[in-house]
Amino acid sequence: MTNLNEAAEFFKQADKILILSHAFPDGDTLGSSTALCRALQQAGKHAMIRCSDKIGPKYQYLFEGVVPEEFEPEAVVAVDIADVSLFGEPLRAQYGDKVDLCIDHHPSNSCYAKRCFIDPKAAATCEIIFHLLRLMEIPIDRQIAASLYTGITTDTGCFKYTNVTPSTYRIAAELVETGMDAPSINRKMFDTKSRAHMEMERRVADTMEYFYDGRVAVVAITQDMIRETGAKEDDMDGISSIPRQVEGVLVGITIREKTAGGYKISLRAQRPVNASEICAKFGGGGHAGAAGCTFNTTMQEAKTQILAGVGEYLQQHVKAAK
Amino acid sequence: MTNLNEAAEFFKQADKILILSHAFPDGDTLGSSTALCRALQQAGKHAMIRCSDKIGPKYQYLFEGVVPEEFEPEAVVAVDIADVSLFGEPLRAQYGDKVDLCIDHHPSNSCYAKRCFIDPKAAATCEIIFHLLRLMEIPIDRQIAASLYTGITTDTGCFKYTNVTPSTYRIAAELVETGMDAPSINRKMFDTKSRAHMEMERRVADTMEYFYDGRVAVVAITQDMIRETGAKEDDMDGISSIPRQVEGVLVGITIREKTAGGYKISLRAQRPVNASEICAKFGGGGHAGAAGCTFNTTMQEAKTQILAGVGEYLQQHVKAAK
Repeated sequence: MTNLNEAAEFFKQADKILILSHAFPDGDTLGSSTALCRALQQAGKHAMIRCSDKIGPKYQYLFEGVVPEEFEPEAVVAVDIADVSLFGEPLRAQYGDKVDLCIDHHPSNSCYAKRCFIDPKAAATCEIIFHLLRLMEIPIDRQIAASLYTGITTDTGCFKYTNVTPSTYRIAAELVETGMDAPSINRKMFDTKSRAHMEMERRVADTMEYFYDGRVAVVAITQDMIRETGAKEDDMDGISSIPRQVEGVLVGITIREKTAGGYKISLRAQRPVNASEICAKFGGGGHAGAAGCTFNTTMQEAKTQILAGVGEYLQQHVKAAK
Repeated sequence: MTNLNEAAEFFKQADKILILSHAFPDGDTLGSSTALCRALQQAGKHAMIRCSDKIGPKYQYLFEGVVPEEFEPEAVVAVDIADVSLFGEPLRAQYGDKVDLCIDHHPSNSCYAKRCFIDPKAAATCEIIFHLLRLMEIPIDRQIAASLYTGITTDTGCFKYTNVTPSTYRIAAELVETGMDAPSINRKMFDTKSRAHMEMERRVADTMEYFYDGRVAVVAITQDMIRETGAKEDDMDGISSIPRQVEGVLVGITIREKTAGGYKISLRAQRPVNASEICAKFGGGGHAGAAGCTFNTTMQEAKTQILAGVGEYLQQHVKAAK
C-alpha cells in the first residue's frame, strides 16, 4: 500500500502516462481520469485516457480540457477501478497485470496493481485526486475543478449519501471557488430527464401496487412500455428507485420484462432491510440498498415469488408496522 | 438597514422574543426560527415561534430542540419573510406593523420592520442565522445544526441551485461536523414522497405541454386534481419543478388554481433566463431561478398571458434554439 506522497513522487518520475477508467464509466471514474490527465498535461507530461466502453454524450464536457494524445505508455494508472474484472475488454487483457499505480476509494479494492493508494473514507476517487494535485502543487483550474466536482457529486448522489464528510463539502467549496459551474453539472447529472424518461415515469407510476401494509411497493415495466415510450437504456436511469421513494415503503420492487423473455427484478431497500440477502435466495445479489435477480417465468409468477421472498424476510427481520 | 453586529446587539438586549415564520412554511423559515429559538433559549432568553399555518409532520423534527413557551412578547423577529403579506393570518393582523427585526435573504424584501438585516447573497436565511450565532458566540449543537442544515439544503434544492456559494458548502461542513444526520434530512426532504404526491406527479405529467421549440414546458394543477388525489400542501412540494426538469426546457411553468379562485403561476428557470424579471411584469417576484405571480383570470387567460411574457423574454434575451 502506497501513501499519497509516494503517489505524487510516482507522477513526478513518470511520463507517457496512460490513465484507465472502468467499464460502464460513471462520473467518478471519468472525473478522476480527466482531472488527472489535464493536470499532468499542464505539468508538462504526456498523458492519455482509455476506457473499454464508449463515453456517453452526458460526460463529453469532461474531456474539453484534455488534449488528445497518442503514445506508447511508459506508466499505467487505474482510477476508481476496484478490480481487474471491472476494466472491461480490451483493457483487461491489455493492461490488467500491468498497472503501476491504482488510486481508488472502494473498500473492496483487490490491490491488483504494483502500487495501490486506497482511501475508503473518501466519498469519491475525485476527492483523492484533489488532495494529490494539491500535494503536487498543480493548480486546479476551472476545468479540472469541473471534473473533480462531477465525480464527487455523482458518487454522493448530489451530497445526499452517507459517504459525505465535512471534507467533501470543503473540497466542493474550493472547487466552486475556481468559477466552475456546479449548478449546470448538477442539473445535467440529476435534474434533466428526457421526454421518454418522463413518459416512462408516468407509465410506471400507473402500475404501482402496495403490499404488506404499504411497506412494499411494486411496479412493472413491459417491453411494450419500452417500445411505446421509445425509451433507451439511458432513459431508464433512476426508474427502479421510484417505488422505494414512497413514504413508508421499505422495499421497492421493479419487475422488468427482458428483451429475450423472462423478468429482471430490481430491489431497492432501506434499513433495516438488506436487499442483497433477499435477492441471494433467488440466485441474485448486490448491495444492502440495491440488489437484483432474474426469473425465467411469467410476470405473475415472478411477482408472486419475489413478494413471497420479501414477505418472509420482513416477517423474520422487521417488526410489523404499527 | 441593520448590520449583523447590530442584529446580534439587538438579541443581547432583548428578552421574551417572538420569532415569526412565514405562512406555507418551508424548510428555511422553520429551520431559521427553530435554530434561532433554541439558540436564544440556550443563551438564557425566553423565546417562542409562531406561524400562521400548521406545521406539517415532515418538519416536526425541527422542533425537538425547542422548549415550548408562552409569554407576552417584548420583541418580535421575522425570519425569511420577505413581505408583510407573507405572514398569513392571524399573524399579519397581529404583528405586521410591530416587527422589531427582520432577518432575510430575499432580494425582494420590502423592509417592513424597524430593523432589517437582508443578505441577498446568502443562499438561505439559515446561512445568516449561522453567522449570527457565531457572532453571538452561541454554540451550534447538533439540533441547531440540523435546523440550519435543513434550511440550507431545502433552499438550495440539496446544493443544486445557482444560489449555492463556496460559503454554503463551508457552512454545511461545519454543521455536519456537529454529528447531525444530514443524509436522513436529505432523504426526508428530497427522496420521500407521499402516495398523494406520487399520484399528483402522475396527474401533473399528464397535463404537460411544450412551447417555443421545447424550451418552455407548462403543467396545470386544478382544485379538482387536489381534491381527487387528497393532496395536502406538503404533498405539493417539488411539483413545480417537474416541467423544468425536462431536457431542453429553460422555463418550467406551473399554473395552479387557487382555492378562492384565480391562478398562481410558479416559474422555474435556468440561466440565462431570470424568472423573477418575467414575474415582475405581472406584479410578482422571487429569485432568478424560481419566481411566482398571480392571475385573477381563467386558466386559459393566465396561460396565454404568462406564455406571452415568457415568449417576449426569450426573444429579447435568449438566442433561438438551433
